[in-house]
Amino acid sequence: MRLNTVQLSRMDITDPFWKQYTDLVEDVIIPYQWDIMNDNVPGVESSHCLENFKIAAGLKKGQFYGAVFQDTDVAKWLEAVGYSLAEKKNEKLEKLADDAIDVIVQAQQEDGYLDTYFIIKEPSQRWRNLCEGHELYSAGHMIEAAVAYYEGTGKRKLLDSMIRLADLICRTFGPEEGQNHGYPGHQEIELALVRLYRVTQDKKYLEQAKYFLDIRGAGKNYFLEERKQENFKRIFPEFEDYDPAYSQSHEPVREQKTAEGHAVRAVYMYSAMADVAEEYQDKELMEACVALWENITQKRMYITGGIGSSGFLERFTTDYDLPNDSNYSETCASIGMALFSLRMANITRNSRYAELMEQELYNNILAGIAQDGKSFFYVNPLEIKPRQCMSHTSRAHVKARRQKWFGVACCPPNIARTLASLGQYIYGVDGADIYTHLYIGNQTYIPVNNDVVKITMDSMFPWEGNIKVKVQGVKEKVRLHFRIPSYAENFRLYCDGKEQELTVSKGYACVEICRDSELSIQFDMPVEFLHADPRVSADVGKVAIKRGPIVYCLEEVDNGAELQCIYLSGKAAQKKKSTYFSECLELELQGRRLIPRNGELYSSAGLTYEDAVVRAIPYAYWNNRGEGEMLVWIHEMIGN
Amino acid sequence: MRLNTVQLSRMDITDPFWKQYTDLVEDVIIPYQWDIMNDNVPGVESSHCLENFKIAAGLKKGQFYGAVFQDTDVAKWLEAVGYSLAEKKNEKLEKLADDAIDVIVQAQQEDGYLDTYFIIKEPSQRWRNLCEGHELYSAGHMIEAAVAYYEGTGKRKLLDSMIRLADLICRTFGPEEGQNHGYPGHQEIELALVRLYRVTQDKKYLEQAKYFLDIRGAGKNYFLEERKQENFKRIFPEFEDYDPAYSQSHEPVREQKTAEGHAVRAVYMYSAMADVAEEYQDKELMEACVALWENITQKRMYITGGIGSSGFLERFTTDYDLPNDSNYSETCASIGMALFSLRMANITRNSRYAELMEQELYNNILAGIAQDGKSFFYVNPLEIKPRQCMSHTSRAHVKARRQKWFGVACCPPNIARTLASLGQYIYGVDGADIYTHLYIGNQTYIPVNNDVVKITMDSMFPWEGNIKVKVQGVKEKVRLHFRIPSYAENFRLYCDGKEQELTVSKGYACVEICRDSELSIQFDMPVEFLHADPRVSADVGKVAIKRGPIVYCLEEVDNGAELQCIYLSGKAAQKKKSTYFSECLELELQGRRLIPRNGELYSSAGLTYEDAVVRAIPYAYWNNRGEGEMLVWIHEMIGN
Repeated sequence: MRLNTVQLSRMDITDPFWKQYTDLVEDVIIPYQWDIMNDNVPGVESSHCLENFKIAAGLKKGQFYGAVFQDTDVAKWLEAVGYSLAEKKNEKLEKLADDAIDVIVQAQQEDGYLDTYFIIKEPSQRWRNLCEGHELYSAGHMIEAAVAYYEGTGKRKLLDSMIRLADLICRTFGPEEGQNHGYPGHQEIELALVRLYRVTQDKKYLEQAKYFLDIRGAGKNYFLEERKQENFKRIFPEFEDYDPAYSQSHEPVREQKTAEGHAVRAVYMYSAMADVAEEYQDKELMEACVALWENITQKRMYITGGIGSSGFLERFTTDYDLPNDSNYSETCASIGMALFSLRMANITRNSRYAELMEQELYNNILAGIAQDGKSFFYVNPLEIKPRQCMSHTSRAHVKARRQKWFGVACCPPNIARTLASLGQYIYGVDGADIYTHLYIGNQTYIPVNNDVVKITMDSMFPWEGNIKVKVQGVKEKVRLHFRIPSYAENFRLYCDGKEQELTVSKGYACVEICRDSELSIQFDMPVEFLHADPRVSADVGKVAIKRGPIVYCLEEVDNGAELQCIYLSGKAAQKKKSTYFSECLELELQGRRLIPRNGELYSSAGLTYEDAVVRAIPYAYWNNRGEGEMLVWIHEMIGN
Repeated sequence: MRLNTVQLSRMDITDPFWKQYTDLVEDVIIPYQWDIMNDNVPGVESSHCLENFKIAAGLKKGQFYGAVFQDTDVAKWLEAVGYSLAEKKNEKLEKLADDAIDVIVQAQQEDGYLDTYFIIKEPSQRWRNLCEGHELYSAGHMIEAAVAYYEGTGKRKLLDSMIRLADLICRTFGPEEGQNHGYPGHQEIELALVRLYRVTQDKKYLEQAKYFLDIRGAGKNYFLEERKQENFKRIFPEFEDYDPAYSQSHEPVREQKTAEGHAVRAVYMYSAMADVAEEYQDKELMEACVALWENITQKRMYITGGIGSSGFLERFTTDYDLPNDSNYSETCASIGMALFSLRMANITRNSRYAELMEQELYNNILAGIAQDGKSFFYVNPLEIKPRQCMSHTSRAHVKARRQKWFGVACCPPNIARTLASLGQYIYGVDGADIYTHLYIGNQTYIPVNNDVVKITMDSMFPWEGNIKVKVQGVKEKVRLHFRIPSYAENFRLYCDGKEQELTVSKGYACVEICRDSELSIQFDMPVEFLHADPRVSADVGKVAIKRGPIVYCLEEVDNGAELQCIYLSGKAAQKKKSTYFSECLELELQGRRLIPRNGELYSSAGLTYEDAVVRAIPYAYWNNRGEGEMLVWIHEMIGN
């Protein structure tokens, strides 16, 4: 039996670290994205996505504009709004969303079909180019939005509309003669159908999700066959020489043991695989999930949680191939990895999955958004020299500053919906068992068997390992399971002032209470100096600094230019309160700096060093103080 | 007054190091490329380039096939044949070439035009797409072939034909009204026109070369204007978003101070700039040449001589941006850099230019060809893990083994013509002054004022710094200038057994003789451990090994896999005679090897090392013993 997430409507995030971001969602990001979607932000690439719906609905005249999956911007925005309204009523916002939903529903076709690109621009091409057309991907996001909006507001209008679309998909795709035997070019519909099943309890959606997974990569590759259709219309020029591994359709999903292809596609699919494996108790499918998760985290992931080491095609490459300055590490891929890990955490109750969620959230995901909530990274390098990220070169995809908005705008609204649904990552509940995955301060009402307990968690995490948990309303036995982070030293658990002997299972310490209690979790978080497996060429001779879940980096503004000239020479680290970032611990370390010489490019003249104080800030906070160099993996002195 | 190269017909290469390659040219490469061009090599990509000429000549029916510059394969082959026949008669080969020339001349149009792509496929598009069409580039290569073939055989047929083409070009392009004010999208015609001028003494060709340089990058960019023509036909999809710097047309050539854009285009142009600067005593143009040469060699060149650090667009990027595993470093670009440096050496008589020719020839250029003469590298990385060079990724351009032939086959025939004309790099002559740029064993008749002296040079260079030079036929005073390599220690010069006091000018030691003499040049070549300027991020903490002109590398076959785990721990190097490569010194060094651990991808557990013997071979010889890892920049232990 899997653990369940807690309804967002019953939870308030009070965490000092995260509240600055979750407040941003409602105050800045959602309104800003609304303006973007309505093309009301000057100097920003046109979105046109609401306009597309109006045109498709016949309310306006005009042409489709944007990416083939432009609809998903509205979907992710609505999903974020749903989560936000669950946490806090906001009539003005709800009105905007209701109006948008009215337009969306009007754009939907008689038979349930909805995709403005195909409705406006290519009506004859419906479902004919699954490889590139993204119809099922867009449908998936709109279904997720419908579920979130229903859960956040109780309103069924979009949900009912998406049920009609899902029903059309179930009729259209399947093994029967006359049905389309294809599957999505970009996965997302699978996990959305599972969500729809869970909210409607109609099993056909779950079965449809399973069908899409079962058929994928089986037999002749659908995408290579599909393009042989008469009058087939191509969309992306770079898909000319299509490799099925790009969309994880190179072999049946159960047989996949290594993470291949486009990283976002991959992890969205793995998330659905975990869902379906759990629902059907499909051991083989679960084994594939475990193998894929292990392959990523042990061989194909950056220390920041970034995945997808190739800039070209935003894809996984091969084991230990993790260049720091030319990677993709898309923010959306880390969001997908967090979603996959959340499912694995709730299914297995093994803390390593929760720890990875934490690693993603505190590092690669958070790096995707500026502290003002208005600019965003798609690509998250671990090392950058701005002048080397030139257009028309191999590093053109790496940006030296966050962008206001993007033509292909997947990441910004994805960050919004992630921050708005942060609460889902904190707890997992099953009967009287409450698992605390993450130490994010909150106040939550959790159903426990037939009662409801109120949990109040206060902490200064990730800066301090000192968490207070107040549990109220306890009538029967409740078992609280607290994750013991791998980086924690000297982990202690107190209940009503009394230190508990730890009963640990798969990384969670359990304490049983039968009455209202006050707990305290304490652990030390020493600064860690981490080496990568030496098979990661890019990191040999280098060290990364981490404290708790926070990966640190050096920035030019603190350390001067040519960061690669800095060597760490010792392991003493002083913690300093940041003067720039609120509630942030920076680190000061001892180092030496290689002195650039004047002269030949290559020379046998000796090298000289000077002592240097090295200042590190959390990776997630880089590029908030202007453009400059940044570096995660720092050289270290290694003597004979 | 510039130094002149020596006619290849008066020179025999006898050098043990190079003879294995120059013999290959006649015995293997030229016949093999003939078969390729005639599509007689099974399993190799179709060339069709002779077929194109036959179709254009009306001798066969059929379609054009190949790249827009497919004609240049035949041109470079003919150029190589010309050089080869200069050194040694070969009737069978000459017959093949004569027959090919007959077809080429028949393909030429009434007015002198020649380009099979446009003749067969796009007759209406002649000179309309200079940016992508490569007509002037192809013309340049065919003119170079005509000059070489005339000089090698005395036959004028191709030369006369190319004079007609050059005349057409001079009529077509120029500043007058009614003339086309464009210039080539890929430079090459400029240096070819200078060669044609030097063989015909018709100054209009020199003036045309100067015109193409003067007009380039002046005023509105021609290529951006050209594409506005009605019915303009695009050729390369990647040129959609064209940046004039790609073709060095972003500013007037005299104002260019940094090497930008496509590396081959750049250095071919710089070669012509040097020619024209010298012919016109154009100081400003010469200053641009010096600045560009210095920018490349001091900031944008690999230690192997490779240039063009971006895989995308095969281009220069920015100062000190020299990644080792994703670079382009095209073989052709190094050939162009050698041609540029040869001109600079003969104009300035400064040894640094000759030293760079040597660096290119012994490293990046030679690496382009396998020891059997039948397979070739375009891209020359300094570090490779074969499994990481996957298709559909950012490193797809890096190949782990030399290729049989290429669809775009510029490098193989370029290597052939370079090896066949190796003699031009050795000496520079002006009156009674003979400069020895390179210590390549040879026997040569050199005109000195009104006489001819015979020079016989014997050496085991680059393995030993011990060169014997016999000069015969000396009637009047002759001044011999011998280059003092920067890597030479304890340079000594003996004349008839007597050590000479060195008179050194710009890196050349001069000795004056008045009668037949025997000279001996001796110097030590210690193994050098070189560091890159610390601004080259990729090389910090690493060292490269060089002895004389030879850059060394590690290969997996000698050192096992995971070469990045090897640290050099000392500077003792033992020279060992290679058991695999004939006449080759390998090096054995002391090192330590980081032991891969089993466990987490990122861990604070300490690292462990074991002692290791490190074996290095010349970089140019890598990938002759099967596929495997290779590494030039080796980690080194750096203590506190």
